Amino acid sequence: MKARVHVTLKTGVLDPQGKAVAHALDSLGFEGVNDVRQGKYLELDLAENDPDKAHAAVDDMCRKLLANMVIENYAIELDT
Amino acid sequence: MKARVHVTLKTGVLDPQGKAVAHALDSLGFEGVNDVRQGKYLELDLAENDPDKAHAAVDDMCRKLLANMVIENYAIELDT
Repeated sequence: MKARVHVTLKTGVLDPQGKAVAHALDSLGFEGVNDVRQGKYLELDLAENDPDKAHAAVDDMCRKLLANMVIENYAIELDT
Repeated sequence: MKARVHVTLKTGVLDPQGKAVAHALDSLGFEGVNDVRQGKYLELDLAENDPDKAHAAVDDMCRKLLANMVIENYAIELDT
């Protein structure tokens, strides 16, 4: 079973990487880019085939490793 | 208008970052993780409100800055 995880910075947390991308786009002549926020995207290939167990396992992985719960949110999607 | 962009490594391109995450998960006792691939996720806030024009602009941004077309794929989603 495949799981897709998005890790994004919480609202209000400064995102210098996103700001740098926005600046670079502006320098390249792209106008009308108000804001850019950059996050992480992970695709996990799991041996587990039960959706509930897979979701619980990935949730645990996010809390323990993939996301910094102080400044980041995460979202989990499972491929059915 | 908001645009969401996923930048992922093409199939066959080595992903040491994903491998490191898979190793770390294994070290933490998570079993049954066959593979991890890591990509980038960007949220862009655009002044443009026309979906076609916004998509064309973001496509251009991906080709010129956000993705390395030699080793990466990108996917664009627009919030309606």
